Amino acid sequence: MKTRKILLPEKELPRKWYNVQADLPTPLEPVLHPGTGQPVGPDDLAPLFPMPLIAQEVSQERFIDIPDEILEKYLIWRPTPLYRAYGLEKALDTPAKIYFKNEGVSPAGSHKPNTAIAQAYYNKISGIKRITTETGAGQWGSALAFSCALFGLECKVYMVKISYNQKPYRRMMMETWGANCVASPSTETNAGKKILSQNPDSPGSLGIAISEAIEAAVSDKTGQTRYSLGSVLNHVLMHQTVIGLECQKQMKIAGDYPDIVIGCAGGGSNFAGLALPFVRDKINGKKIDIIAVEPASCPTMTKGPFAYDFGDSVQMAPLAPMHTLGHTFVPAPIHAGGLRYHGMAPIVSQLILDGIVRPISIQQLETFKAGITFARAEGFISAPETNHAIAAAIREAVKAKEEGKKKVILFNWSGHGLVDMAAYEAYLSGKLKDHALPEAEIQRALKDIEPLPKPRQYRAGAF
Amino acid sequence: MKTRKILLPEKELPRKWYNVQADLPTPLEPVLHPGTGQPVGPDDLAPLFPMPLIAQEVSQERFIDIPDEILEKYLIWRPTPLYRAYGLEKALDTPAKIYFKNEGVSPAGSHKPNTAIAQAYYNKISGIKRITTETGAGQWGSALAFSCALFGLECKVYMVKISYNQKPYRRMMMETWGANCVASPSTETNAGKKILSQNPDSPGSLGIAISEAIEAAVSDKTGQTRYSLGSVLNHVLMHQTVIGLECQKQMKIAGDYPDIVIGCAGGGSNFAGLALPFVRDKINGKKIDIIAVEPASCPTMTKGPFAYDFGDSVQMAPLAPMHTLGHTFVPAPIHAGGLRYHGMAPIVSQLILDGIVRPISIQQLETFKAGITFARAEGFISAPETNHAIAAAIREAVKAKEEGKKKVILFNWSGHGLVDMAAYEAYLSGKLKDHALPEAEIQRALKDIEPLPKPRQYRAGAF
Repeated sequence: MKTRKILLPEKELPRKWYNVQADLPTPLEPVLHPGTGQPVGPDDLAPLFPMPLIAQEVSQERFIDIPDEILEKYLIWRPTPLYRAYGLEKALDTPAKIYFKNEGVSPAGSHKPNTAIAQAYYNKISGIKRITTETGAGQWGSALAFSCALFGLECKVYMVKISYNQKPYRRMMMETWGANCVASPSTETNAGKKILSQNPDSPGSLGIAISEAIEAAVSDKTGQTRYSLGSVLNHVLMHQTVIGLECQKQMKIAGDYPDIVIGCAGGGSNFAGLALPFVRDKINGKKIDIIAVEPASCPTMTKGPFAYDFGDSVQMAPLAPMHTLGHTFVPAPIHAGGLRYHGMAPIVSQLILDGIVRPISIQQLETFKAGITFARAEGFISAPETNHAIAAAIREAVKAKEEGKKKVILFNWSGHGLVDMAAYEAYLSGKLKDHALPEAEIQRALKDIEPLPKPRQYRAGAF
Repeated sequence: MKTRKILLPEKELPRKWYNVQADLPTPLEPVLHPGTGQPVGPDDLAPLFPMPLIAQEVSQERFIDIPDEILEKYLIWRPTPLYRAYGLEKALDTPAKIYFKNEGVSPAGSHKPNTAIAQAYYNKISGIKRITTETGAGQWGSALAFSCALFGLECKVYMVKISYNQKPYRRMMMETWGANCVASPSTETNAGKKILSQNPDSPGSLGIAISEAIEAAVSDKTGQTRYSLGSVLNHVLMHQTVIGLECQKQMKIAGDYPDIVIGCAGGGSNFAGLALPFVRDKINGKKIDIIAVEPASCPTMTKGPFAYDFGDSVQMAPLAPMHTLGHTFVPAPIHAGGLRYHGMAPIVSQLILDGIVRPISIQQLETFKAGITFARAEGFISAPETNHAIAAAIREAVKAKEEGKKKVILFNWSGHGLVDMAAYEAYLSGKLKDHALPEAEIQRALKDIEPLPKPRQYRAGAF
């Protein structure tokens, strides 16, 4: 019988994260203070993050040890299986070999706990008692809630109100793990109160929720609260590299090496988690097509310039050098909520600029069609975000058939869709639609940023 | 680092199911025809099931080969991990070692596909094109939908209307896998129409849904439709023994052997799947406490006599020798929908009668408290049914602490609760309650059955 899952024994769990900053052809531009426009230093970040994470954010070490306490928690679901997608290959009648890394086996159902566990741990050993964060559809909030439960930390999640009301299951997961989850804008912060005074019916946004979470962290006078972000930042991407590091061992066991590596990209963390160890190989001479897939309705990488822009819409977060559509860009309400971010991780952005990562965009209907094909061929129901990676893998597998080439395709199956079934219902009932490329909205939002290397004048922020 | 998950490589997947009928101290009583009261033969069952499954139902062979085509599909998620529950042990401060078998890693999220895959396969090779079934909350229906998708079979699911409306996610899963799911009572069958003419607002019941699914199967004049049941029957329990067979190998790797084996029991299939291989060991002299856990509000095993009773409420299904509360028993609306069946698998019933399996019952609030403890200590959110097994394991672990004994406890983590989050919300918000033992309802329903060995007079059924 043919091997379907390439499993690693627990002792093969990677003991170090890979830090691509040691190998980047072009070093990252500094992150700037939103108030002064000057590069931020550790002291600027100290109210937000514990020192070990700040140190990781700027580290140039190639490998960073994973503490035993984190490894022990990783073992709850890691190493994750690498699958050979025989069912999908057969359904597509392709000569390509398709592999996918199943990150959906974590208790939260996605790759997000890879960094949530690490962040909870470093906060814990830094004497922090409480972590605040924001969440959109709830993937990140639930991953952090799960991780805080394991380390005995309090967790406070500001969840975008429209999702809080429309997608209650993720909120209930957070509460089951003991987190306190409130709809944002809330009356618990000045930022929330201000928004509500202007618009009592505000549906909320990630930008507002970030502002509330940051305010709740920095305004705790005991100094025992910090803030946490689930993507974009360097240390977050680094924590995710356990995915790609495991994959490299597993591909070796399978006796293959990928010609094509694919991940969907919102903030960039699941894509980078799989891709960065292969980026290292590519920098060292390997020929690999490394593809980051974004939704056509939020084309950050394919349509956004590389520029300094705020991480949040209300200009409290630092300015990052990245591909961005502008911090006031409002993407269409697609179901892949995790891919609706206006910016992109600086590391991923720089790799695109340097021609190492190839970004593409795909429309919503194609991604759900891919998700249905996958579910009926491989069994697993994927998150709407993950369907973008599947759609790209299918495109490449079809191309391989047309060209008669035996390509090896590897993609990150970043999470399951069991808490996103309403999106499938919308697709199956014909209610879902593609969204025209929002050119006017892009042009509007882009007026608010300026390209590198000329930083704009920054409004004083609360950061 | 301590091993958390005991993994089996794919080549260690069991190649045979274990058929406990070869070892039962007391052979099973025959199943009777609902119309004649006479033992059913293969011809009676042929309109419902394909011949290979009918043969398995009565086989006395100790081991039955698992065909390669089934093994290949099992590999999508099997072998499943056996976990050492370090987090739970620590939370309980117990000297007991707790192990759980994670059956939640299947695409449908529970153990149900172990038999759904097998049933789909045997229907497929018997020339059947379409399978009908009923489902309550949707676990079974989604498992069969998933399995039919993999084998290219049509799948028709009659889902109890109140669940169809209240729990749409499972229905959407079935549709994503290509199944056709209708609310029962429906207007598609005479049984459904009859109920609707009497009560247009009928919320439906498993009994009605079974009638519809059976009618839809037997009334297909092409002869290409069969019916499928997800629990209770001998062949269903046998397919589930891959769980326990894997566990025996994994416990050996762990260097332990269980003193206590626990599963929750509704129809009996996940319990039996784990327990039967250990039942064999017990029959051969091993000292093991094998515990089947049921809800206190549906105390089939602990309060129901062993008698002949109908498998469904409308007397279309055969009469089975089993512990039963009577086929008209209506349990309280607890959230563990999979444990609300009036009867119990004949195999499990006989093992209780013979003193090999020890049944216990637990109230709803204790099970959810256990589920919360588990989620915060081990990470995974459990199905409400599974919480019954966890609650029993916690009771035994606490007892071990009180007695200072180093017991080894093994339970079946039969499924995750990600599609059941509303139940957790109800618990956390204090809205959930225990239900008094329904003595009056039990006495009422029991009047309709008679104990063995004197079979009652049977009404002519449509079977």
